[in-house]
Amino acid sequence: MTRKQPTKPKRKKTKSSDEAFSDLGFAKVDLEREQRCGLPEVIFSEGKTPKQVVDIAKTLHRNGQPILATRVDKKTGKAFIKAFPRATFHEHARLAIHGTLPKGRGTISICCAGTSDLPVAEEAALCAEYFGNTVHRCYDIGVAGLHRLLSHLSEIKKSHVIITVAGMEGALPSVVGGLVDKPMIAVPTSIGYGANMQGLTTLCGMLTSCSSGVTVVNIDNGFGAAYAATQITRLL
Amino acid sequence: MTRKQPTKPKRKKTKSSDEAFSDLGFAKVDLEREQRCGLPEVIFSEGKTPKQVVDIAKTLHRNGQPILATRVDKKTGKAFIKAFPRATFHEHARLAIHGTLPKGRGTISICCAGTSDLPVAEEAALCAEYFGNTVHRCYDIGVAGLHRLLSHLSEIKKSHVIITVAGMEGALPSVVGGLVDKPMIAVPTSIGYGANMQGLTTLCGMLTSCSSGVTVVNIDNGFGAAYAATQITRLL
Amino acid sequence: MTRKQPTKPKRKKTKSSDEAFSDLGFAKVDLEREQRCGLPEVIFSEGKTPKQVVDIAKTLHRNGQPILATRVDKKTGKAFIKAFPRATFHEHARLAIHGTLPKGRGTISICCAGTSDLPVAEEAALCAEYFGNTVHRCYDIGVAGLHRLLSHLSEIKKSHVIITVAGMEGALPSVVGGLVDKPMIAVPTSIGYGANMQGLTTLCGMLTSCSSGVTVVNIDNGFGAAYAATQITRLL
Amino acid sequence: MTRKQPTKPKRKKTKSSDEAFSDLGFAKVDLEREQRCGLPEVIFSEGKTPKQVVDIAKTLHRNGQPILATRVDKKTGKAFIKAFPRATFHEHARLAIHGTLPKGRGTISICCAGTSDLPVAEEAALCAEYFGNTVHRCYDIGVAGLHRLLSHLSEIKKSHVIITVAGMEGALPSVVGGLVDKPMIAVPTSIGYGANMQGLTTLCGMLTSCSSGVTVVNIDNGFGAAYAATQITRLL
Amino acid sequence: MTRKQPTKPKRKKTKSSDEAFSDLGFAKVDLEREQRCGLPEVIFSEGKTPKQVVDIAKTLHRNGQPILATRVDKKTGKAFIKAFPRATFHEHARLAIHGTLPKGRGTISICCAGTSDLPVAEEAALCAEYFGNTVHRCYDIGVAGLHRLLSHLSEIKKSHVIITVAGMEGALPSVVGGLVDKPMIAVPTSIGYGANMQGLTTLCGMLTSCSSGVTVVNIDNGFGAAYAATQITRLL
Amino acid sequence: MTRKQPTKPKRKKTKSSDEAFSDLGFAKVDLEREQRCGLPEVIFSEGKTPKQVVDIAKTLHRNGQPILATRVDKKTGKAFIKAFPRATFHEHARLAIHGTLPKGRGTISICCAGTSDLPVAEEAALCAEYFGNTVHRCYDIGVAGLHRLLSHLSEIKKSHVIITVAGMEGALPSVVGGLVDKPMIAVPTSIGYGANMQGLTTLCGMLTSCSSGVTVVNIDNGFGAAYAATQITRLL
Amino acid sequence: MTRKQPTKPKRKKTKSSDEAFSDLGFAKVDLEREQRCGLPEVIFSEGKTPKQVVDIAKTLHRNGQPILATRVDKKTGKAFIKAFPRATFHEHARLAIHGTLPKGRGTISICCAGTSDLPVAEEAALCAEYFGNTVHRCYDIGVAGLHRLLSHLSEIKKSHVIITVAGMEGALPSVVGGLVDKPMIAVPTSIGYGANMQGLTTLCGMLTSCSSGVTVVNIDNGFGAAYAATQITRLL
Amino acid sequence: MTRKQPTKPKRKKTKSSDEAFSDLGFAKVDLEREQRCGLPEVIFSEGKTPKQVVDIAKTLHRNGQPILATRVDKKTGKAFIKAFPRATFHEHARLAIHGTLPKGRGTISICCAGTSDLPVAEEAALCAEYFGNTVHRCYDIGVAGLHRLLSHLSEIKKSHVIITVAGMEGALPSVVGGLVDKPMIAVPTSIGYGANMQGLTTLCGMLTSCSSGVTVVNIDNGFGAAYAATQITRLL
Repeated sequence: MTRKQPTKPKRKKTKSSDEAFSDLGFAKVDLEREQRCGLPEVIFSEGKTPKQVVDIAKTLHRNGQPILATRVDKKTGKAFIKAFPRATFHEHARLAIHGTLPKGRGTISICCAGTSDLPVAEEAALCAEYFGNTVHRCYDIGVAGLHRLLSHLSEIKKSHVIITVAGMEGALPSVVGGLVDKPMIAVPTSIGYGANMQGLTTLCGMLTSCSSGVTVVNIDNGFGAAYAATQITRLL
Repeated sequence: MTRKQPTKPKRKKTKSSDEAFSDLGFAKVDLEREQRCGLPEVIFSEGKTPKQVVDIAKTLHRNGQPILATRVDKKTGKAFIKAFPRATFHEHARLAIHGTLPKGRGTISICCAGTSDLPVAEEAALCAEYFGNTVHRCYDIGVAGLHRLLSHLSEIKKSHVIITVAGMEGALPSVVGGLVDKPMIAVPTSIGYGANMQGLTTLCGMLTSCSSGVTVVNIDNGFGAAYAATQITRLL
Repeated sequence: MTRKQPTKPKRKKTKSSDEAFSDLGFAKVDLEREQRCGLPEVIFSEGKTPKQVVDIAKTLHRNGQPILATRVDKKTGKAFIKAFPRATFHEHARLAIHGTLPKGRGTISICCAGTSDLPVAEEAALCAEYFGNTVHRCYDIGVAGLHRLLSHLSEIKKSHVIITVAGMEGALPSVVGGLVDKPMIAVPTSIGYGANMQGLTTLCGMLTSCSSGVTVVNIDNGFGAAYAATQITRLL
Repeated sequence: MTRKQPTKPKRKKTKSSDEAFSDLGFAKVDLEREQRCGLPEVIFSEGKTPKQVVDIAKTLHRNGQPILATRVDKKTGKAFIKAFPRATFHEHARLAIHGTLPKGRGTISICCAGTSDLPVAEEAALCAEYFGNTVHRCYDIGVAGLHRLLSHLSEIKKSHVIITVAGMEGALPSVVGGLVDKPMIAVPTSIGYGANMQGLTTLCGMLTSCSSGVTVVNIDNGFGAAYAATQITRLL
Repeated sequence: MTRKQPTKPKRKKTKSSDEAFSDLGFAKVDLEREQRCGLPEVIFSEGKTPKQVVDIAKTLHRNGQPILATRVDKKTGKAFIKAFPRATFHEHARLAIHGTLPKGRGTISICCAGTSDLPVAEEAALCAEYFGNTVHRCYDIGVAGLHRLLSHLSEIKKSHVIITVAGMEGALPSVVGGLVDKPMIAVPTSIGYGANMQGLTTLCGMLTSCSSGVTVVNIDNGFGAAYAATQITRLL
Repeated sequence: MTRKQPTKPKRKKTKSSDEAFSDLGFAKVDLEREQRCGLPEVIFSEGKTPKQVVDIAKTLHRNGQPILATRVDKKTGKAFIKAFPRATFHEHARLAIHGTLPKGRGTISICCAGTSDLPVAEEAALCAEYFGNTVHRCYDIGVAGLHRLLSHLSEIKKSHVIITVAGMEGALPSVVGGLVDKPMIAVPTSIGYGANMQGLTTLCGMLTSCSSGVTVVNIDNGFGAAYAATQITRLL
Repeated sequence: MTRKQPTKPKRKKTKSSDEAFSDLGFAKVDLEREQRCGLPEVIFSEGKTPKQVVDIAKTLHRNGQPILATRVDKKTGKAFIKAFPRATFHEHARLAIHGTLPKGRGTISICCAGTSDLPVAEEAALCAEYFGNTVHRCYDIGVAGLHRLLSHLSEIKKSHVIITVAGMEGALPSVVGGLVDKPMIAVPTSIGYGANMQGLTTLCGMLTSCSSGVTVVNIDNGFGAAYAATQITRLL
Repeated sequence: MTRKQPTKPKRKKTKSSDEAFSDLGFAKVDLEREQRCGLPEVIFSEGKTPKQVVDIAKTLHRNGQPILATRVDKKTGKAFIKAFPRATFHEHARLAIHGTLPKGRGTISICCAGTSDLPVAEEAALCAEYFGNTVHRCYDIGVAGLHRLLSHLSEIKKSHVIITVAGMEGALPSVVGGLVDKPMIAVPTSIGYGANMQGLTTLCGMLTSCSSGVTVVNIDNGFGAAYAATQITRLL
């Protein structure tokens, strides 16, 4: 007998609603996350089956929450759209989104070094918009052509938070960091090859930036940068 | 001439039964392992052809032993089921199981941080059950939502051994380890990306846990944790 | 002939004051950094001779700026105190400080996992105070004894930004991140041994935290976290 | 002014005894750890000043607890002996011990591959004895001279738990694991050079042992193995 | 225009036969290698197109040399058989062989730890036979079941050179090395997962073996071990 | 709704032509690069969609510039040829080329260690020719057959710049560097396996060459070597 | 008996002068290196005893050659000055120099990111001057303060070759590379900590620079960059 | 109480002489190693106290065996000479030797790339002589000056086994391997810096040599190479 179903989880018998989560057996959906952390539960789709992602999404939806699923592949994206026909699946940014949070007061600039970094930059941008921020996109402004960056500088300076997305040697945050007085979050991407080591060089370069106060999230983690930026704009 | 057959091993001429193993040429099946190590031979299927796995399984079966094969892919799983129609192939946990060991006295809690870690957690759980233990599954109780873990705590404390399965930064064993007084085995999973480095970060994090006495097995090695836990429950 | 003097740099002949920096030959001291970046130039002392550090400090002082030097060893610290008798040299935090920035409106909680992480936590705390913030110190609240963390939780929740400092597996930001709704910056320390790999495991663990929106600075970079946190509190 | 004192922590004003820890400002000494985890608080001395170690030890002592401090260097060892004249400082095993836990029912075999691994083996042995276990020492039985190991085998088989300590390629647990039916904890040591990479090769070798159910602790972590082994013997 | 042909190499105009190689433009086939190195040129097929492999093989053949091609994939294997119908393509060992060297006086034992290591062991065995040696195959004698190894010991001791092939922690050469007085060459395989890191752990473990005088070749390099062993047996 | 289009970039409203780049929204095509850097903009195709590559190419073409696109896969190559029927797509070297720069005065020798390194060597050769250099190809002259290298030596010595392309241990630049008096640029390739670690060993070997003055570019970066060599020949 | 002398090498009996080297037993001093490679032999002092360095220097001197010794520590520097009283020992740059090569036609700009990178920058500058080049020093022009770099730009553009020296994330070559049309050699330094990994991050960042044609030498290898730059200026 | 003595091992009560080893408690001295392995026990001194090394040496001596101790530091060397006044302590090669094995029939060439590699080369040479071989030393013949190597070639070709010792990129074995028809063992040294990574680059380079049949021992392991070479010459 072949068991295709991954596991045989059972819903817990206790009144889980009292416990601020809904127990699906394979997942305990956190329903009071917004009260605790200011932003609602987000679904990390990697390693989950399409059915698991959709079931968690439905639970959130039943409890009146908007839905953001990250790292959604094509198959899961299709299942998501089928379950939530009004949702949008952004194939390149690997996001499935249903609903949105109320518009806040914050403005976030998303600076992107090269065209190849766009999927990650868009993950950050779309997530930041989902979380209620206004987003300025400044794309393909890598440091090998400084004039491109400088043409965007006044716009960047006016935002509350800056997200810089870059691959290769990851020099963009160092240069931008020396020109602005705003919190900046750097997102290394896995664009590059050889000595780039799938983005580890970019990551470590950003962590050892000669500009002070650059904070960094994981490789290709546009979502994480948008989340952190929103925790900042929520202070305004 | 193309030789598809991997090699031309020959069965050894000596009376191998006297030597406590059955010599298939490409494999020497260990028939007295249970006498030596308390638990019978288990088949590690990675790198073996379906035919090799089935041939070893048949040898064990002929000698009256139950069969557990780990890291079984789809193709080998099908061949196994064809050879042992009463066996079960767990596709997600990559296990093929035929028969079981006698029920023991031990209880093992399997704590799993996230839904994406389920295949490894189930590998541990199914193996632990195969080895005769009673298993409590506590799934999706990662430390980013502590209340989910605390809701399972009294149950966890009652078991004899705890297996914690987690990916990402692997914080679950540290938190659980500070709350219980039982042996705990941590299983890092390869869930994560970028700086996670296919689970190496999780593995190293668990090895440097701030909780004392956390022991660790290889990345994604649910089977190993179940085996080690059973060596403990066999002492009861 | 032995040349002990490291190099023979010459002061540039051009009117460097017009160029917003003072050229010492071996260094170009950035005098308009506060206008550009909101916070004045800080001296990174590693790899510089005591004389170089003091000369840069004097240039800043002559231009009416307060002085913060980081990663100051004993020898440089003594030279600093000799040159600026009213300054303070914090030997453990490796900081030399002269003057301070005007008090701002922000409050920063500095959460520290273990006593061994104190030097880095104090680097963050003293820098944050230098930059004009109010600091709450919550020390030795590692996740292996959750009750210690929970006793500080209400205080932590009231601050504007949270800095978490931890070594070993670096689980503290993951747990704190699941309990609060404020921006959090994680500082990995090099406390640990073996699989900790001089803090790389801690660093990578924090970068792959299961809590959303954790941003990270370099290993032992308490200063960087304080700087980034101040860029946030400057928005208030 | 030079501040030699690392930091200016203040004792918390709240009644910390109610909170099951004693707040020294720089440390929160966990006083109910034995109730929670079965074994009392242990002091990890690395990165702490001698005074900090002694102050924590005094707090434990005042509360009627025995004291075990690990990774104690010479300077701290002297300070410890001065404060607790009846204590023992084991210089090679880097342990300071005062008092002991009641004798339990468990027997632990400590197998050590080479003479160079002795400091780590003794750390494990002395800690295991401190925790109340009976210890069998089987030293210098590395796999390059199998007859030495086999001469100890019957003794090893009689113990409840086996700790194997080895450096270099770390083959000892694989060989022992194939001969016994007891839980085994492997401790990699940093003995070796070049491709050994400070014990990382040993560690990874043990984690990928061809023997099933080997669990592993951090490099040179004899204490951790003894702690984990005691969690097992406490079940008896 | 799409140029599918990899490059436009041209045959060199000089009389290359005088230069002891035949210049195909994309390759300079070494025709006097046997005179210099004792063994004829061998074709490393990885990264070469099937046509390139066959063209080099034909050049060798035209010059009266036998042919051994290593790391031959299916596609190249088929092209090889088509060009040399009497050749043999060993799919698992990834070898294409046409002809053989004269039988020498040496005997080589090939010891293999597990069934999953067979493809590499067979690469070594078939190459050793191609080079004129007599080969003893001792397969599946990993150290987790010592009795299997011991049953082959007298046979192993009688050979001139020993090749040990193992994956995982790579303990086999350490144990064998302590029991025999013959040159031994260890071949790490990439069998394993997680902390095995594609065989790097096995490789480094063998390099830091506690047995003296173990020499090592690259991961999965059965051919290299056979070549080195033949350089030894050629001395007899 | 599934959004296949990667992102929704908008062309910037400002007169970008004044700013020396053409803003496509997803890319800012640098039109004055030749004025600044001596060589026109080159398209790095990895991570870009075929449409993005073609759109950038068209913008360059409209501005009267020749086109070189690197790391072009089959799909993008086809789209390129469709858009520019007179262009050439070199499938193995992964280059799409339309037009060429005026012939210069420089001669570049491209030395290649093995046949498997040819795709990278050809990337270097074709780019060097595109940039207007005369190219001498010296292929398959690896150090294991020194006479092959020596047969090319006088030719190599006559060129202005030498590019050495090698995989495995990367010894070629060390040997060539000891025989010539010209600038040399080494290109490591990812040819090799196991301890080669996808070319990192080759790269690091070249960086630590015992020959003085070897400069190195990234793994498989034939284009970069040709670009750097051209910056040298432009000086003539 | 203790043998302090490292080894007992004997001078070779053959007429080594015919062989273009002078055989000191422990060293074969290359006397025709300038004929072959354009620049005379340079002494790499690391791992050599002071006596060995001086003996090699004397041999060069006897043969009428100037002397450059790199990576010279204090002890060797003193011995060198004692043997060659007119020589200069640059302690920070770790160079001992006696004599110089004839002045050439080339001009080299040495751009240095931070004051901490000065020792490496000076190694490059002094070697370049020794080799006969004119050197422009542009120090402390890191990208976090772009205006400092731009104030040097016209000067940099006028040189024939540019050497960029930087630690941390190594962004300087990327920015400079986008502004100039000259060959550029990047030297990573080991300035940084934590994720910088002793300069490996800087090195890999430079290798994956988004600017085309950056060539790189080993970490802290100022000499190598000067040597390579001189091979270029020798073409003029 | 401070216990300076590392541990309290007790001599085993059983008649260990029957067991072919002498049990010192902290060490089991293998007395029948020569019978089993052809060569007597060798003392690895790293991690052992001077007293432990001397005690083991005395046990060997009492049993009529010659003594070779490797990796002996100054302090242990002095203790050794004091205990065995006729012994020799080679400080640079870190060897203590007392007695020697009977002269055999084998000749070993030790090829060394640079003067800095001499300590390791001498470790190999002295051990090879201790084991009864005739040794040819060919020092400072690195590949950057091929003529130096070629001047030794005929001598090298006449030996039975070749040991090549090199640091940096480790190219020597590749070049030698292409010129000779004898077994060759390569010893990487830790000479180099930066990207050399303490010899790991050299090690991995030798393992991926383009010459067939190069076998490799651990970094700086001259002893291991001599031991392995002797296992070969013992066949003659």
